[in-house]
Amino acid sequence: MSTPPDAQTSALPPTLRWEGGELYLLDQTRLPLEAVEEKQETVAQVWESIKVLKVRGAPAIGVAGAYGLVVAMRDQLELAPQAFLEELARQAAYLDGSRPTAVNLGWGLRRMVARAASHSDASTAELFAALVNEAETIHAEDQALCRGIGESGAPLIRNGMGILTHCNAGALATAGIGTALAPMYVAHAQGTNFRVYADETRPLLQGARLTTWELQQAGIDVTLITDNMAAHIMSQGLIDLVIVGADRVAANGDAANKIGTLGVAILAAHFEIPMYVAIPYSTIDFDLASGAEIPIEERGAEEITHFGARRTAPEDVQTRSPAFDVTPHHLLAGIITNGGIISPPYTQNLRDAFRSEPS
Amino acid sequence: MSTPPDAQTSALPPTLRWEGGELYLLDQTRLPLEAVEEKQETVAQVWESIKVLKVRGAPAIGVAGAYGLVVAMRDQLELAPQAFLEELARQAAYLDGSRPTAVNLGWGLRRMVARAASHSDASTAELFAALVNEAETIHAEDQALCRGIGESGAPLIRNGMGILTHCNAGALATAGIGTALAPMYVAHAQGTNFRVYADETRPLLQGARLTTWELQQAGIDVTLITDNMAAHIMSQGLIDLVIVGADRVAANGDAANKIGTLGVAILAAHFEIPMYVAIPYSTIDFDLASGAEIPIEERGAEEITHFGARRTAPEDVQTRSPAFDVTPHHLLAGIITNGGIISPPYTQNLRDAFRSEPS
Repeated sequence: MSTPPDAQTSALPPTLRWEGGELYLLDQTRLPLEAVEEKQETVAQVWESIKVLKVRGAPAIGVAGAYGLVVAMRDQLELAPQAFLEELARQAAYLDGSRPTAVNLGWGLRRMVARAASHSDASTAELFAALVNEAETIHAEDQALCRGIGESGAPLIRNGMGILTHCNAGALATAGIGTALAPMYVAHAQGTNFRVYADETRPLLQGARLTTWELQQAGIDVTLITDNMAAHIMSQGLIDLVIVGADRVAANGDAANKIGTLGVAILAAHFEIPMYVAIPYSTIDFDLASGAEIPIEERGAEEITHFGARRTAPEDVQTRSPAFDVTPHHLLAGIITNGGIISPPYTQNLRDAFRSEPS
Repeated sequence: MSTPPDAQTSALPPTLRWEGGELYLLDQTRLPLEAVEEKQETVAQVWESIKVLKVRGAPAIGVAGAYGLVVAMRDQLELAPQAFLEELARQAAYLDGSRPTAVNLGWGLRRMVARAASHSDASTAELFAALVNEAETIHAEDQALCRGIGESGAPLIRNGMGILTHCNAGALATAGIGTALAPMYVAHAQGTNFRVYADETRPLLQGARLTTWELQQAGIDVTLITDNMAAHIMSQGLIDLVIVGADRVAANGDAANKIGTLGVAILAAHFEIPMYVAIPYSTIDFDLASGAEIPIEERGAEEITHFGARRTAPEDVQTRSPAFDVTPHHLLAGIITNGGIISPPYTQNLRDAFRSEPS
């Protein structure tokens, strides 16, 4: 009943930790100013932590939600099995409301509820033990997927390379060693020396606040730049490789990721620098033939007209604020997955690699 | 002894105004929160205004410095001519120290001193009148160059177009209608309807703070985006034309401009959108064969690790912060100048257009 050893083998930040029957979350809203772990005493606290982005990143939220259900149910052990299952369903619905758009959250919660429901004639204590076991399984699976991505991608990284990344697709976004950053962690552990350039990633500065912080923690050489410096840095010959994450990949390899990724891909193509997207298989949406079908969320104007509480643009200025963009597959050198690096043609090769996986 | 009529014919912000023997500067450090004009009572106040960037933009500083000398000398009319000239030289050196790196400032001040010195046997009153006249001439020349750029570039703008610009090369950076924004002001006055997308321009947000503000004042449709949204906006077919300014253009047309311009140029080329640099002839440096010879200023880390007083990146994170980048001439569709639009081959055509101008 403790965090699997994988997460403890490095200097990586503990995005979340399950130890002695307690859930600890790193409060990411206080990064990079301070790294404070908060023990989650109640399910309401877990709900709040997800809501206000103390824990963020779809895989990390999925794991946090699963443990959140354990926190919710540990005080309900006096209930009869049927009442316990009813309370479990109620608590799952409650947690699911903390961030309605995060697909991994609902997926993890449904998995927890289904696991308990599959134990007919079990005692309440047995149901609770099954919940703990399922949360630990979800946790371990996320770590294994990250590890797999890292091992697939690490051979791309050679001594002396400069590597550009965008946003935060690192350990802080998962329960493991991340997606885009996973190959870097594995290569670093293998003794490869390289330098990472982190785009600050406007408007919410995930690169400046989170990516630089976690790479620093791990002892990896990292340099912060503004998004609009990437072209100049590339023109100086400082970048040999680009690795980013993705929020959703279509069957043909088109990849939706944090706004700015498309620009990075076009610059990389211009300077003939190979660019890879790094994802677990679960990010591939085989129901989408191409990226044209991926809806792009538009965020609120205040994210770009204000900085914290301070206004930095005229009142009532018009804005556009797409949260994501879509990089067409032809701009990618390959897709790094837990099952190896997938090369074109993606529609064929992604399906061949993952057709046997549960969807 | 008042601002030439050109600057008053539109709703453009009065970067500076000379009226009734008084110099008024718009305090740009308070934009976009409030537009406050400050009457400059003393030369020390003008020095401070330039120093703390209440007035910024090389052409605007050149004009402000010239008027600053008038402000300095208007209280010295009791001096004999020779003493007046000596005091003039002293005040010019003082003002020149407000921003040692702004070439236009020293150029304007030297021109003022030379003009007065050329009047041998003049009375102090005549010397002072010559100074006022010279400042007004410098002012009018800057306005005429801006106007010329606007008229050269306006025919590129057609109804319904989306135009992207980067940083602020507008009225606020000059005493006239700007450089990159000048064609937009002229086209708008001619009744052409178009939409401008303004990159916010990290790290100092000149696009968010200044470009959106002045275009709003003029009634031009403007939409603010973060720098890293430009690729997505282009991919949606929303941009038909890109116009930016430049700090220095080499003899072959390579253009140094605010960091991020190179990235915009590569994106524009990828999406086959024509991109123009808009400059007065005085920005061309015929002594530089190519952009490779242009030194790139590196700025302090705190501009990207902090926002105002608030830290947004880890302590001691490594940074790069180039203030400019160089766009190779082959990425440009042309160079908009006060003497028309220059097409390739630039080395030949720039020289042919401006070889008769004073350097």
